[in-house]
Amino acid sequence: MSLINTQVQPFKTEAFHNGKFVEVSDVSMKGKWSVVIFMPAAFTFNCPTEVEDAADNYAEFQKAGAEVYIVTTDTHFSHKVWHETSPAVGKAKFPLVGDPTHQLTRAFDVHIDAEGLALRGTFVINPEGVIKTVEVHSNEIARDVKETLRKLKAAQFTAANPGQVCPAKWQEGAQTITPSLDLVGKI
Amino acid sequence: MSLINTQVQPFKTEAFHNGKFVEVSDVSMKGKWSVVIFMPAAFTFNCPTEVEDAADNYAEFQKAGAEVYIVTTDTHFSHKVWHETSPAVGKAKFPLVGDPTHQLTRAFDVHIDAEGLALRGTFVINPEGVIKTVEVHSNEIARDVKETLRKLKAAQFTAANPGQVCPAKWQEGAQTITPSLDLVGKI
Amino acid sequence: MSLINTQVQPFKTEAFHNGKFVEVSDVSMKGKWSVVIFMPAAFTFNCPTEVEDAADNYAEFQKAGAEVYIVTTDTHFSHKVWHETSPAVGKAKFPLVGDPTHQLTRAFDVHIDAEGLALRGTFVINPEGVIKTVEVHSNEIARDVKETLRKLKAAQFTAANPGQVCPAKWQEGAQTITPSLDLVGKI
Amino acid sequence: MSLINTQVQPFKTEAFHNGKFVEVSDVSMKGKWSVVIFMPAAFTFNCPTEVEDAADNYAEFQKAGAEVYIVTTDTHFSHKVWHETSPAVGKAKFPLVGDPTHQLTRAFDVHIDAEGLALRGTFVINPEGVIKTVEVHSNEIARDVKETLRKLKAAQFTAANPGQVCPAKWQEGAQTITPSLDLVGKI
Amino acid sequence: MSLINTQVQPFKTEAFHNGKFVEVSDVSMKGKWSVVIFMPAAFTFNCPTEVEDAADNYAEFQKAGAEVYIVTTDTHFSHKVWHETSPAVGKAKFPLVGDPTHQLTRAFDVHIDAEGLALRGTFVINPEGVIKTVEVHSNEIARDVKETLRKLKAAQFTAANPGQVCPAKWQEGAQTITPSLDLVGKI
Amino acid sequence: MSLINTQVQPFKTEAFHNGKFVEVSDVSMKGKWSVVIFMPAAFTFNCPTEVEDAADNYAEFQKAGAEVYIVTTDTHFSHKVWHETSPAVGKAKFPLVGDPTHQLTRAFDVHIDAEGLALRGTFVINPEGVIKTVEVHSNEIARDVKETLRKLKAAQFTAANPGQVCPAKWQEGAQTITPSLDLVGKI
Amino acid sequence: MSLINTQVQPFKTEAFHNGKFVEVSDVSMKGKWSVVIFMPAAFTFNCPTEVEDAADNYAEFQKAGAEVYIVTTDTHFSHKVWHETSPAVGKAKFPLVGDPTHQLTRAFDVHIDAEGLALRGTFVINPEGVIKTVEVHSNEIARDVKETLRKLKAAQFTAANPGQVCPAKWQEGAQTITPSLDLVGKI
Amino acid sequence: MSLINTQVQPFKTEAFHNGKFVEVSDVSMKGKWSVVIFMPAAFTFNCPTEVEDAADNYAEFQKAGAEVYIVTTDTHFSHKVWHETSPAVGKAKFPLVGDPTHQLTRAFDVHIDAEGLALRGTFVINPEGVIKTVEVHSNEIARDVKETLRKLKAAQFTAANPGQVCPAKWQEGAQTITPSLDLVGKI
Amino acid sequence: MSLINTQVQPFKTEAFHNGKFVEVSDVSMKGKWSVVIFMPAAFTFNCPTEVEDAADNYAEFQKAGAEVYIVTTDTHFSHKVWHETSPAVGKAKFPLVGDPTHQLTRAFDVHIDAEGLALRGTFVINPEGVIKTVEVHSNEIARDVKETLRKLKAAQFTAANPGQVCPAKWQEGAQTITPSLDLVGKI
Amino acid sequence: MSLINTQVQPFKTEAFHNGKFVEVSDVSMKGKWSVVIFMPAAFTFNCPTEVEDAADNYAEFQKAGAEVYIVTTDTHFSHKVWHETSPAVGKAKFPLVGDPTHQLTRAFDVHIDAEGLALRGTFVINPEGVIKTVEVHSNEIARDVKETLRKLKAAQFTAANPGQVCPAKWQEGAQTITPSLDLVGKI
Repeated sequence: MSLINTQVQPFKTEAFHNGKFVEVSDVSMKGKWSVVIFMPAAFTFNCPTEVEDAADNYAEFQKAGAEVYIVTTDTHFSHKVWHETSPAVGKAKFPLVGDPTHQLTRAFDVHIDAEGLALRGTFVINPEGVIKTVEVHSNEIARDVKETLRKLKAAQFTAANPGQVCPAKWQEGAQTITPSLDLVGKI
Repeated sequence: MSLINTQVQPFKTEAFHNGKFVEVSDVSMKGKWSVVIFMPAAFTFNCPTEVEDAADNYAEFQKAGAEVYIVTTDTHFSHKVWHETSPAVGKAKFPLVGDPTHQLTRAFDVHIDAEGLALRGTFVINPEGVIKTVEVHSNEIARDVKETLRKLKAAQFTAANPGQVCPAKWQEGAQTITPSLDLVGKI
Repeated sequence: MSLINTQVQPFKTEAFHNGKFVEVSDVSMKGKWSVVIFMPAAFTFNCPTEVEDAADNYAEFQKAGAEVYIVTTDTHFSHKVWHETSPAVGKAKFPLVGDPTHQLTRAFDVHIDAEGLALRGTFVINPEGVIKTVEVHSNEIARDVKETLRKLKAAQFTAANPGQVCPAKWQEGAQTITPSLDLVGKI
Repeated sequence: MSLINTQVQPFKTEAFHNGKFVEVSDVSMKGKWSVVIFMPAAFTFNCPTEVEDAADNYAEFQKAGAEVYIVTTDTHFSHKVWHETSPAVGKAKFPLVGDPTHQLTRAFDVHIDAEGLALRGTFVINPEGVIKTVEVHSNEIARDVKETLRKLKAAQFTAANPGQVCPAKWQEGAQTITPSLDLVGKI
Repeated sequence: MSLINTQVQPFKTEAFHNGKFVEVSDVSMKGKWSVVIFMPAAFTFNCPTEVEDAADNYAEFQKAGAEVYIVTTDTHFSHKVWHETSPAVGKAKFPLVGDPTHQLTRAFDVHIDAEGLALRGTFVINPEGVIKTVEVHSNEIARDVKETLRKLKAAQFTAANPGQVCPAKWQEGAQTITPSLDLVGKI
Repeated sequence: MSLINTQVQPFKTEAFHNGKFVEVSDVSMKGKWSVVIFMPAAFTFNCPTEVEDAADNYAEFQKAGAEVYIVTTDTHFSHKVWHETSPAVGKAKFPLVGDPTHQLTRAFDVHIDAEGLALRGTFVINPEGVIKTVEVHSNEIARDVKETLRKLKAAQFTAANPGQVCPAKWQEGAQTITPSLDLVGKI
Repeated sequence: MSLINTQVQPFKTEAFHNGKFVEVSDVSMKGKWSVVIFMPAAFTFNCPTEVEDAADNYAEFQKAGAEVYIVTTDTHFSHKVWHETSPAVGKAKFPLVGDPTHQLTRAFDVHIDAEGLALRGTFVINPEGVIKTVEVHSNEIARDVKETLRKLKAAQFTAANPGQVCPAKWQEGAQTITPSLDLVGKI
Repeated sequence: MSLINTQVQPFKTEAFHNGKFVEVSDVSMKGKWSVVIFMPAAFTFNCPTEVEDAADNYAEFQKAGAEVYIVTTDTHFSHKVWHETSPAVGKAKFPLVGDPTHQLTRAFDVHIDAEGLALRGTFVINPEGVIKTVEVHSNEIARDVKETLRKLKAAQFTAANPGQVCPAKWQEGAQTITPSLDLVGKI
Repeated sequence: MSLINTQVQPFKTEAFHNGKFVEVSDVSMKGKWSVVIFMPAAFTFNCPTEVEDAADNYAEFQKAGAEVYIVTTDTHFSHKVWHETSPAVGKAKFPLVGDPTHQLTRAFDVHIDAEGLALRGTFVINPEGVIKTVEVHSNEIARDVKETLRKLKAAQFTAANPGQVCPAKWQEGAQTITPSLDLVGKI
Repeated sequence: MSLINTQVQPFKTEAFHNGKFVEVSDVSMKGKWSVVIFMPAAFTFNCPTEVEDAADNYAEFQKAGAEVYIVTTDTHFSHKVWHETSPAVGKAKFPLVGDPTHQLTRAFDVHIDAEGLALRGTFVINPEGVIKTVEVHSNEIARDVKETLRKLKAAQFTAANPGQVCPAKWQEGAQTITPSLDLVGKI
């Protein structure tokens, strides 16, 4: 069954966030929009560029009232060192979440058994903890965080306007469609 | 288990394509890149705008040597009528694939049991029939086909250049990274 | 076990009826006689002639206090378009019921697994929701709605006159038989 | 699963036919069209009228190259006596088949467990032993053998003309439809 | 396990008795002695002679306060006709019991699966519904109802005289044995 | 399932016969007719009278080419002493079979679990080892060996004359019936 | 698991004792010491000598407050005759227990399946129904009842003197040992 | 099932014998008679007296061609020390067998789960490895090795004289019985 | 799963301690630190040297408030004799625990199935019965009790100082580390 | 079952070793002695001190022909960074093995499910891949690598001298014991 429109499974783990070790859980995610971004491993090649891309757009996510979570199967200890040693990762002001027990990679179906690492998966989750978009790449293919931002805003808009749907390539402010019997078969 | 890097399951079904009914199968997909785009149902609201978006970018996909497949759980009969009656869908020059047996929506994990319809799922598949990217939205949130194009090109580039990876928000022609021991912990 | 004299299984789905989308369910069928007519698919060949045949006799069914339901595995969206585009189907004043989840084709045992479509099945159901007659054809063989009307009236007559049975080829108004010991072995 | 387009299950039993006891089996049915008519019990009320109706139309069935089989769960001994003592049944020139082991009522899904008797079921079977039409009534509702004849002829016509389908209420000699892409959505 | 000294299993069926259709059940058998006589089928060869033999001795059974039941797997409809058409069976003043559901032939372990008919079984049952004697023959070997009468009387005598046993070939009025320690090893 | 027309199950046991201990088995029974008579226990009350009854008729059984076997769950040792001490049993010239392992009482379904003893069961078995008649009494009701002799002869007659059946109360030399279509429903 | 120090299983059976038939059960054994002696079969060779040996020592067992039970799988009827006809067995004043249901031979694990007879087993049981000694021989090897008497007395002594144990070949009145730490490794 | 007349199960273990450690197994027991004597534990109270009793009679066992094995769940190391420190055990010239794996106590059904120790069991085993006598005591009751010697000789006599059986309390040289038909019921 | 940080399983057994037999159990271990030392078998080669090594350091263990337990699968009887006869073992003032039921060797996962003996395992257990260190050697490799003492003290120190950890080769009195965010990645 | 004397399970993983990434597997361990040292996580507190302790003694291990492996559930990427950033870890000249799939922590039974990290476990493994010693600590208790060196040398000595065993606290060059019967119970 697809994860779309299902509830995030209960979890509890440690993250490095703004110079501290903090606990992150399904409960702490509730009440605001979340963007969960899985990466294969700390200290590797693509991952810092993706963290940096997220960091560069973090102000936008914050303006949209959303928190960003970077997750790898490393420990929070490794994340602290990664933050200290990588110029790119050092820009991150959002939680770097450790998943050494593999509970998160399994719950979001991005675990690679043969490597013990995550696929590149991105998830937009609403304040009730319900997954609204899923995007997963084979690890050699990086993501574009602008598209994640677009998805987030479309998800927020349709949540706020239940009677409307966003058409293809909708951007914030663009026109939407209000489904009605008359439109059936006419578009 | 994630569908990423797994083989497309065997299937056989009917499509409406350029004024004819044709058979589409896992075998007929082999040998070139494929972009499979699921939509909830013919004659509805968002779907024509997404078909149109794909049609407007079809030349780009073709230039990249990729075929586009639109899939719904309707019959190929409905797709013919949809193509005839919808100005937006009428632009489509790629196969409109019928999946009344639900074999494709189930194989790609985008089936909604309570409705018998598909989620908005997009898949980039390589010429060996291996799934390289997955993107699924709750149905009220439309996609942007430009991002699909970007994923396709990144997948093609890394397939052609095994020793390199694309960094975040990579676009065709941009710089890539060649992983090496020296880079570990340095980016 | 035969479906004869069993209760219609619970279901709920959407139909196109007199310019509106309406919900149809086992509950909404209760309280009057129902004639349920399955067809393979919208937009196909025989089906419109059968819908038209039913439409031409609809006044008779209404006089008998029965509702007619056309069912295919298409969506109600497709049914709206079919009604608009087919001159034959456009005559229909009874509900065109969508069954994209296949719950009805499976409950009435007319599902074709290999195609996801229905067999040509007709069912007369009494106001308590009990199936009184079953008729199913291989799809290349169409039905005659006059015979369905005859079955309906015989079912209504015997329901109203518990002590009597209708002899072969009985038509409304013809003589019936009242079973008694004396008749055993004498007819 | 529906019995439509399935093979008749293997069986072997005794019948009374033209003053003799003969064996009837799935094998003996092969090579010509068969019409199998189940009835509740010998010596009862409706059944003789239905046997007589079949007898009155037997010349038509023979002209169409079809054999008629009347089946009840009685023995062939009872069928001989029934034939001798009932004026109506005495007209029958086709086999009266005994099914005391209930193998046929179960194979055709017309067995009533609580009574050990058959429902009123009629089946048209092609020369390969494949069931093409099914019709079953609650026992208080008799059938019309003219409609069975119409179904038989439609089944024979479409078997002989694979490229054509019979429209609603088709009678021998009437026009048929040849499905083609152009007709999709046009009838 | 042997049926001897077990309770007759619950059943309910229809019989032809003295020109009427009556219900017979395990409950209706209680309160008097019963003699249950199974036969293969109505209208056959040996069976009428056995029914006649029972009819000729029926006065004796009645004097002993016992009812006689003839059972076949035919319907009660067939039994009415049998009674009317067979001079031998026409003498029967006891119930001719129909067992089309095979519940009685199975409960008394006299069912022939390959034929759907009964073996020649005779059972003496006491007023509490307990089976006291069992006699079953291969169908080509008829019974002698005088021996059944002798068994019935011995069963009644020992029921009435709990302290005594009937010796071999005991006839009504003959001497019996009263078991005692002294007799052990002395007869 | 009834034991009628089934094969005697394999067994091997010891008997006392004409002053010797002999082995009796299913194999040793083959080639001639057998009459197997079970009794509850040696040294009891009815049993000697039944053994005596059999002994008094033994010449008849021998003339008919049949062997008689008396069986109890006692040992052959007990049977020797029984033969020596009981005047009635002392007349026996046929095998007194011991069944201390209960294999025979279980195979012939006459075992009383609560007592470890046999019911009064009599079986006529043909030279192929097939059981043709079964007769079992509750133990307080003795048998009449003359009736067993009648059954044996009827079984032998119908075995020798496959086209004929013995009518009710048939005795050696009496008329039989040859089944034919003409007789159906006429006796 | 060994039977030593387990409870005798519940049973109920008939015995011949001092000219009467009496019931013997696990309950009737309680309250005094019991010696249970199994033998293969009545009327055989060794068994009478062992019964006689027990009879000759019965006064000793009685003085020790113990009852003796001889058990075979024969009936109590056979035991009465055995007692009458065997001079050796005729001396027995203790119960001769019948076990035709094999419940005792199975409960004491001395049953020979292939023969339906008992092994030569002797059991000393205390007044609480707990088995204290087991002795079983292959049937060609007889026992010596003096040794059984010795075991009984040792069992009674240690029951009465919980702090002491009987050394090897202890006889009534001989010295015993009182276990203590000091004796460990010193005897 | 009783162990009588079953084969000793395969085993292999270490023993202390005449100043050496030797291997003892089911194979090494073959070819001569064996007497296996289980005891609870080395260094305890009764056990040395029983070992001494066996040692005092060892010459007799040897004359009879039998080996004696003492078995406890201790190691062969403990047995060496036991032999050195106990004056009673020091007399032993037969193997003192260690069973720390509990394979022997379990195979001979003398294991006490709650203690990890053996019951006092004695077994006479023939040269083919077949158990002929079993004797087990609750541990507070010692054995008398003279009785074991008597059993051994009776077992050897009947093995050597297949046609004879030893009567009760038989001692070497005493009269035996030759079973014959004439003796049945006469002793 | 590792035994580390799990509770000792419930057990109860007998030990030889300071000239007495005493009961040792999981309950009696509670309230003070325990050091459990398994050895293969009493009276063997390495074991006495290890017992002596423990005895020589026993004052240190006592000063640390810990009890030492030596365990083998021998009985406590053997342990008494071992203590009396071995000069090395005779020094032991701590309990020598018998485990003839193998409950302890199995609970601590040091049982050798093929021998019924223990591996050389040492366990430090805290006063709550939780195992803190495990050390197991193949039996040819002896331990050094000084290292066990070091482990015990480190376990006691960290238990008493929850905020600190002992660095490598820590000895009583040496410096410890207090984990803090600042130290992550800095040592 | 204990891991002692079992074969290392098959595995394959990546390590950082002398400035390179190398593959380590069960196969690459064969042919020389191995010392496998698990630690909870890179960048933590105790772990660097233990790595440093191993590094300081590495010359000794090399002289003994043994390789040392440090294992954590981190990736080899993290190990490279750890080696670069930690002065203590930077001394390591042996492989730092990554186990992100947890195959090694599970195979050596040192996995902590709730944390995804390893316990402090040390294993000495012989050149055939057989585990000879196991040592596991709760994570707050560090190890002393000198003791591991002592175990390694004792394991090597006994491997080289099969007839000898090392006594307690044996150090290289000290006296050993040669087991013999005479020594049993004498040390």
